[in-house]
Amino acid sequence: MQKRGLDALLVVGPAQHNPAMVYLTGGAHLTEAYLVKKRGQPAVLFHRTMERDEAARTGLETRNLEIYHMSELLKQAGGDMLGAYVALFKNILADLGIVSGRVAIYGHYDLGQAYALFSALQAALPAVSLVGEFESSLLSAAMTTKDAAEVERIRRVGQFTTQVIGQVADFLASRRVRGDTLIQPGDEPLTIGDVKRQINLWLAERGLENPEGTIFAIGYDAGVPHSTGTNTDPLRLGQTIIFDIFPCEAGGGYYYDMTRTWCLGYAPDEAQALYDDVFSVYRQVISELRQGAPFKLYQARACELFEARGHPTIKDDPTLEQGYVHSLGHGLGLCVHERPSSRLTGSDEERLEPGVIFTIEPGLYYPGRRLGVRLEDTLWARPDGAFEILAEHPLDLVLPVRRR
Amino acid sequence: MQKRGLDALLVVGPAQHNPAMVYLTGGAHLTEAYLVKKRGQPAVLFHRTMERDEAARTGLETRNLEIYHMSELLKQAGGDMLGAYVALFKNILADLGIVSGRVAIYGHYDLGQAYALFSALQAALPAVSLVGEFESSLLSAAMTTKDAAEVERIRRVGQFTTQVIGQVADFLASRRVRGDTLIQPGDEPLTIGDVKRQINLWLAERGLENPEGTIFAIGYDAGVPHSTGTNTDPLRLGQTIIFDIFPCEAGGGYYYDMTRTWCLGYAPDEAQALYDDVFSVYRQVISELRQGAPFKLYQARACELFEARGHPTIKDDPTLEQGYVHSLGHGLGLCVHERPSSRLTGSDEERLEPGVIFTIEPGLYYPGRRLGVRLEDTLWARPDGAFEILAEHPLDLVLPVRRR
Repeated sequence: MQKRGLDALLVVGPAQHNPAMVYLTGGAHLTEAYLVKKRGQPAVLFHRTMERDEAARTGLETRNLEIYHMSELLKQAGGDMLGAYVALFKNILADLGIVSGRVAIYGHYDLGQAYALFSALQAALPAVSLVGEFESSLLSAAMTTKDAAEVERIRRVGQFTTQVIGQVADFLASRRVRGDTLIQPGDEPLTIGDVKRQINLWLAERGLENPEGTIFAIGYDAGVPHSTGTNTDPLRLGQTIIFDIFPCEAGGGYYYDMTRTWCLGYAPDEAQALYDDVFSVYRQVISELRQGAPFKLYQARACELFEARGHPTIKDDPTLEQGYVHSLGHGLGLCVHERPSSRLTGSDEERLEPGVIFTIEPGLYYPGRRLGVRLEDTLWARPDGAFEILAEHPLDLVLPVRRR
Repeated sequence: MQKRGLDALLVVGPAQHNPAMVYLTGGAHLTEAYLVKKRGQPAVLFHRTMERDEAARTGLETRNLEIYHMSELLKQAGGDMLGAYVALFKNILADLGIVSGRVAIYGHYDLGQAYALFSALQAALPAVSLVGEFESSLLSAAMTTKDAAEVERIRRVGQFTTQVIGQVADFLASRRVRGDTLIQPGDEPLTIGDVKRQINLWLAERGLENPEGTIFAIGYDAGVPHSTGTNTDPLRLGQTIIFDIFPCEAGGGYYYDMTRTWCLGYAPDEAQALYDDVFSVYRQVISELRQGAPFKLYQARACELFEARGHPTIKDDPTLEQGYVHSLGHGLGLCVHERPSSRLTGSDEERLEPGVIFTIEPGLYYPGRRLGVRLEDTLWARPDGAFEILAEHPLDLVLPVRRR
C-alpha cells in the first residue's frame, strides 16, 4: 500500500463470486458487505444484522451496519437513497479515521450504481482521493502469487478436473457407434448437449461449479476458439473436438483450466498434422519457461514456432481468424483469467515470478476446414525454480471407440 | 429512454452472470463485449474476433472490436492502457453518432476498473454526460415486468426446484435413525454438508446452478435468517430446519426462490406455535395482495400481523435479532433479488404491477431458543389480475422419518 501511495482500501459487494472480497474474507456467505483496511491497521468488515454469524466466521474484526441507522440517514437525505449511501460511506471512513489521502476501491459490482455512488462520494469528500486502479490493482498484484494453501486448493480442483475429463473419455468410449456417429442407449445420436449435461453432473458430484460454462465443440465450432459448441451437434468420428474445462470451487473459489483435443475413433491426416504442430509448440514452450521472465516473451516465441511451421499468427494480424489466433495463456486463481497476461501488447512487468499459477494453451484453428486443436495445462512456478503441471492428464488426440 | 432523458445505453462485460447483458443478448457465451443502443436505433454488439459466432447467435447487429486496432490505440496513448480504452469507447460512441447527450452505463464489472474508465471517459467527453442510475435504473425497471416467455422459464426453474425439494425430503425420510440423529449407510451421522452435496447434484441433473449457494440450516443456525448452515452439523429430530433454495438456469439465467421449514419426525410445541404464526401471516398476506399496490404496504401489514401475535418486528428496530427481522419479499428474475423491494424505507413506486414476479417470505427467528421458521413462495402478478404461485409444493412442517 505504501509503495502505491494508498492510505486505505475499500471493498464492496458480496463475498461470493467477487474475487477481491473472497480473497480478503475467505469466501463467507455475505450478500452485501463492506471491507475497509487502513494502512497499518487490521481490516474491518461491515455487515448486516442477518449475516452477523457469517461475518464473524471470517475471523476479521466486524461491525454491524445498523449502527449507522440507514433509515435516519435516508430521512436526513430527504429520501434520496444515493445521498443516504454517500453519508453511510462518509461515516464508515470517518469512524476508521480515514478523512484524507488515497482510498482504492475494489469489488465486482453493478457498474452504474458504483459509478453514481463513488462519483458522489468523491464530490462529498474533497480531501479524499478515490482511486480506481485500471490495469494492475494492488489486490490483483497481491493475488497473482499464490501461497502453499492456495496452490493445494487449485491442485485439488485440478485433480477433480482430470477425473471429470477421464469420465467423459470413458463415457464416449463406451457408447455404441452407428455409421460415423455415437449413439445413446435409446438409439438417438449422442449430442454435445448430452455430454455437457454429464459434465455438469460430474463437476457437481465433486463440489465444483462451472459459472463460465464449458467448451465442448466439434467440427466447425472447434475451429473458433471461444465457440462453446452447439448442443444439437451429434458426436461424429474423425472430427476434432475441443474440450476446454474451467471449473471453480463452489461459491466462487479457486479455478482450474485445461483443454484437450480429441478425435473419436481415428484422426484424419490433416487433424493429426495440426495436432503434431500444436503438441510440438506446447512441449517446446514449456521446456523453455524461465522464472522471472515476462510472459509475453513466450507468446512471441509461440508465434515464431507456429510461423516456422507455416501457420499465420496473431502477431501479424490481430483480426486473424485462422492459424494461431489467440494468446498463449493467462494467470489463474479466484478469476479464471487474471494476471499475468501473455498478450504481446501487455506490460513487461507481467512476469512468471515464483508463486504464479498460469496456463499454457497453444492452438491452431481452421474453421473453413472444420478443424481446431488446442492443448492447455495449468502450471505453477514453484519456489525451487521449477515449473509443475498441477494436474497431469494424457494429451492423446485419438480417443478409441467401440468397434462398429 | 425518452422519459428518463437518456440518449443512449452502454452495457459492458460478459454475457453470463451479468444481468443487463444477459437480458439484452439472451445470454450468449461472450467473455467481454460492449452493447450500445442509441435511442430510436437498434442495439449494436461489439465483440472480439474469437467470439464472432457467439455474438452472431444473439441476432443483434454485431461489430468486431478489432476494427478499432487496439494495439494502435495503445501506441497512440503512449502505452497507457486506460488511455487506450478511453479512445476505444470514444470511437465506438462516435461511430454510432453519440457525441452529446446522456449515456447510461450498465453491467456487472470490476468496480475499480469501471470507476477509473468512466471517470476518464467522462473527462474526455465533456459534451456527453455519463449516467450511473443508482436506485432504479431504466434496465432494472424494464426487467421488473416479465413477458410470457420469461414467466415460462421461471416456472420451469420452479418446477425443477420443487422436484429437488421433494428429493431432499425423500432422502431424509429414508435414512435410518439412531437416537435422535439421522445416520448414513456407513453408520456416520448424516450432516448438513452431506445434504448440500446431494442438493448440488440434483440441481445439476436438471441443468441448474446455485451460484448464491443454498441455505440448509438447523438449530441455532435456523434462527439466523442468512446463516447458510454448518456443514458438520448432524441432522437431529425435532429441530427446525430452514431450507431456502434459489437456483438459476445455467450460465446466469432466470432464478427461482422458495423456502420450507421442516422438523424431522416431530415438532416440539414451541416450533409448531412459531410455524402456525408464520403460516397464518403467509396465508393472510397472500390473500390480501392487490395488483398495483406498493409492495411495502404488505411489509407493514406483515409487521402488524406478527405484532398482534406478540412478536417484535423490524418495523420498530432495524437491528432486531429475534422476531420478524427481515423484509417480506423481493422481485426475482435474472437477479435473485431485484425490484420491487418490500422494504419499509423503499419507494411507493415499487409496486406489484402486472407482470411482476416476486417472493413472499414471512419468518420468525429466535436464535437463543434455537428456532427459526420461514415459508417462501414465488408469485406472478398475472395479466388477469390474479396472483399465481409458479411452482406449488406442500408447506408441511413435520417431515416423517423411519421408525426407530
